[in-house]
Amino acid sequence: MSDKQPAMARRDFLAAIGKAVGGSAMLRAMAAMGIGTSISACGSSSAASAPGATSPPAPRVDSPRPGDWPANVGAGKTVVILGAGITGMTAALEMTRLGYACTLLEARSSAGGRVLTLRAGDVVNETDSSQTCQFDIDEELYFNAGPSRIAQHHEFLLGYCREFGVKLEPFTNDNRGAWLHSPGAFGGQPQIARQLLADTRGGIAELLSTAINQDALDQALTETDKANILAMLRQFGDLDINYIYDGTPRGGFPGQGNAGSRQRGELLPPRQLQELVTEFFWELRLSFSQGFDQQPAMLQPAGGMDRIARAFESRVVDDIVFEATVTEIRKTSGGTRVVFNDLSGTPATIEADYCMVTVPAPALAGIDNDFSAAHQAEIEGFQYSSAVRVAFQAPRFWEQEHNIYGGITWTDQDITQIWYPNHGFQNPNGIIVGAYIFDGAAGGRFTDMAPVARIDATRAQAANVHPQFRDQATHGISVAWNKMPFQRGGWGTSIPLALLSADDNIFFAGEHLSILQGWQEGAILSAYLAIDQIVNRDLGA
Amino acid sequence: MSDKQPAMARRDFLAAIGKAVGGSAMLRAMAAMGIGTSISACGSSSAASAPGATSPPAPRVDSPRPGDWPANVGAGKTVVILGAGITGMTAALEMTRLGYACTLLEARSSAGGRVLTLRAGDVVNETDSSQTCQFDIDEELYFNAGPSRIAQHHEFLLGYCREFGVKLEPFTNDNRGAWLHSPGAFGGQPQIARQLLADTRGGIAELLSTAINQDALDQALTETDKANILAMLRQFGDLDINYIYDGTPRGGFPGQGNAGSRQRGELLPPRQLQELVTEFFWELRLSFSQGFDQQPAMLQPAGGMDRIARAFESRVVDDIVFEATVTEIRKTSGGTRVVFNDLSGTPATIEADYCMVTVPAPALAGIDNDFSAAHQAEIEGFQYSSAVRVAFQAPRFWEQEHNIYGGITWTDQDITQIWYPNHGFQNPNGIIVGAYIFDGAAGGRFTDMAPVARIDATRAQAANVHPQFRDQATHGISVAWNKMPFQRGGWGTSIPLALLSADDNIFFAGEHLSILQGWQEGAILSAYLAIDQIVNRDLGA
Repeated sequence: MSDKQPAMARRDFLAAIGKAVGGSAMLRAMAAMGIGTSISACGSSSAASAPGATSPPAPRVDSPRPGDWPANVGAGKTVVILGAGITGMTAALEMTRLGYACTLLEARSSAGGRVLTLRAGDVVNETDSSQTCQFDIDEELYFNAGPSRIAQHHEFLLGYCREFGVKLEPFTNDNRGAWLHSPGAFGGQPQIARQLLADTRGGIAELLSTAINQDALDQALTETDKANILAMLRQFGDLDINYIYDGTPRGGFPGQGNAGSRQRGELLPPRQLQELVTEFFWELRLSFSQGFDQQPAMLQPAGGMDRIARAFESRVVDDIVFEATVTEIRKTSGGTRVVFNDLSGTPATIEADYCMVTVPAPALAGIDNDFSAAHQAEIEGFQYSSAVRVAFQAPRFWEQEHNIYGGITWTDQDITQIWYPNHGFQNPNGIIVGAYIFDGAAGGRFTDMAPVARIDATRAQAANVHPQFRDQATHGISVAWNKMPFQRGGWGTSIPLALLSADDNIFFAGEHLSILQGWQEGAILSAYLAIDQIVNRDLGA
Repeated sequence: MSDKQPAMARRDFLAAIGKAVGGSAMLRAMAAMGIGTSISACGSSSAASAPGATSPPAPRVDSPRPGDWPANVGAGKTVVILGAGITGMTAALEMTRLGYACTLLEARSSAGGRVLTLRAGDVVNETDSSQTCQFDIDEELYFNAGPSRIAQHHEFLLGYCREFGVKLEPFTNDNRGAWLHSPGAFGGQPQIARQLLADTRGGIAELLSTAINQDALDQALTETDKANILAMLRQFGDLDINYIYDGTPRGGFPGQGNAGSRQRGELLPPRQLQELVTEFFWELRLSFSQGFDQQPAMLQPAGGMDRIARAFESRVVDDIVFEATVTEIRKTSGGTRVVFNDLSGTPATIEADYCMVTVPAPALAGIDNDFSAAHQAEIEGFQYSSAVRVAFQAPRFWEQEHNIYGGITWTDQDITQIWYPNHGFQNPNGIIVGAYIFDGAAGGRFTDMAPVARIDATRAQAANVHPQFRDQATHGISVAWNKMPFQRGGWGTSIPLALLSADDNIFFAGEHLSILQGWQEGAILSAYLAIDQIVNRDLGA
């Protein structure tokens, strides 16, 4: 779900936690989260970058996982888990296997949390509006309004897919045939990504070759280094024999916005690096698909992301109390008590040895509780992305007219991204995401709009990229996560500290408390960490 | 099918044709092939690379396509087409639509030519051996021994898929989680591609930043340029605030050959650029997936590449004479005559106004004919890749143990490439290509081996990358294209000249005569060019 640059976010996260590190409990939690206790990697230069320096192998800091815990450790113990999203269902599934008696309280009438796949007839109830999905009835016409992609190394989520038999297919995150667009650049004309990427590589390679050939880097490079690097740069940038970048077939050919392979011959005139390195361009994700969690290969479940949530749900459904609105979370002598209104609105109480709270912080903040001041303060201050997605049904003009098969077009308008479907290629119709907004200001603007205004605004902005949006994009539907009841946010963006530790017998979990904020894999990692804390409590560790 | 670097091959191709250009007929053929008649783009520096220079828009040089030709132009005319591969079937389909009466002579008992998908029970008969495919019976256990991927802009092939209802799915060509391997580099340990790619970008960005910060490029760059480019380079290489590359999460984390996302914390120590730019590394395709025909998004037909050939076949099957071995290709007064042995071995003769020869040059060279000396010489000298593929059935250790979902691992052993299946993820078994060889020397070595020796050699070399090949890769099967009857080669690699023009009423076509050698799209483009020549003959143009 998250599209921020993971590299810097992770580094900031690590650095901030490093600075705050206190007792061994925190160090243990960090190690369990997969965060190294050595802070040397946190963004600053180190000896490892000096030529010739060798680094010792990094210590292995696996986070906990199923198999780490003794069989039957939970026998006779009870846990109440708040929230039947991926975190809560992972906890219920794994803790049941350890012998714990689990009860899941879920405020909504179905499980999955922010894993939301919309199909014909589905209803989206925000706090102040209601929409019904008007797509045609067709199993390939669905809209993942929440998480939509899986990184290849998200191995726990992928492991559950294997265990559950959820069919996976490739997800094209980085399509060089998709476009980059800014009203203020290139005369407002969308540019095919391949051209700007090829010209950037060419420009970088030509400049560095010039410097090397002018002996400007002789302090750093031997003659052998220079020869090897120059040879590599010719390949890297597709330079000519004189180390000049003069365009490349990698960037495509003229007219290729609307034509395919037959359109060869003249190369596109190369754009100068100076022209390309405007803030617009490199902020529009020159390196987006380099990110560890955004690199190819990526995956999606065939038929919609909620196939995974449904598979989880089917395995823990007997332990879920649906439409249970929690009103109080209390500490008792040696345990916990949760008060909730059941589906008839009748107050009910459940007591358990442990309570695991997986409710997103913005929704949790309003529930009466006995939390410590530190925990409560962190909950109240926890920041979330204001993610908004808007989708339409449309004939597949992007494939038929522009040879775009999946992937993402970027624009620096509020709508930020246009997503093309990665499945059902060449069907008559597809679901196209006309806006995926995750930036705070733009997200706020779209969150504040009524659904019909969001759809109009999306159509208008997207039409600046693809004019076909004006007439061909129909059946618009939107989700503004800040207005979704019981969730009230996209994903956590604050750095967690207090919530990484238990508050007496109350434990906290969720994607926002993981090293992978905004990802389902993060939800699972966080569930494992909370399970580990409970198990170690029972083991007296 | 082709994995050579298209960039340079195209440029060489264009340049060579440019040098050889003679009369207007050749210029017309070149334009029709989509080759610009201006040679200014052919690899050398031009004014376009001087800062501030503007290039005029390149002339549009569309190759011919259906719709260019008058309806019914072929009424009353007959064509005999030799070979029912993609070229021949495209020609038959489109010329029938124009009113031509077409007959396809096909030497084999099924159509599709080098489009070969092997499944349980299929038999591969090379000139001196016979193999039977022993895979388990399962629709997801297939081996594309010929073409295996489709570029997003191969719009004619994709158009036929749309017309025929062939279901397409994404093909992951560039998987950053796949590996690079050389026995002579990094102690023979395979490296995850993401790490070497991230370190290369980081090293390039750091070096260029150093040069810029030392004012070494002040002649080329203004202060504004320098500031913009430095900012871009930090993003491009993930440099720290001092423009030092000190590793990046983009490269992954220690132990990630066998662990997934939980394994975070310490960064991998960065490798120095000097260490990376050995011939091994950059020859092993630092820029492979930048190629115009190799970039994401790519596609494959669900269920096997031959789904496309089968769909073509079903539309022209009534015009195909199977098991027809051509023995003579003759010119007649105002027409052509082809002599062939039919499936009973009985000689037969067919006369037609036109003959279109789509047989691969190595197979064509042995057939008696009336070709001009120039045509015959070019046929006899036409070079083809010596492509070999070897595949196995195996449990999906690459997914379960290494989080590799599709894509290609490179090694500088003879086997060259290992391909992981892009479909059927997490099934118990998959078909893994243990060798895809296209280099002449290695291809020759494997072509010369008996099938069992190829399989043993592949297993031994692949086990240097994945030891699991030793015990888990079973049911090996291979195809050496130089030994496949009626084909005798992978794809054409010579530069065509004489064969681009008709020889009286005999016309030549095939991927080898296209701007996209080795690709099905090239076969289609070539068919269109030959149709255009015939149509223009009939129009008296």
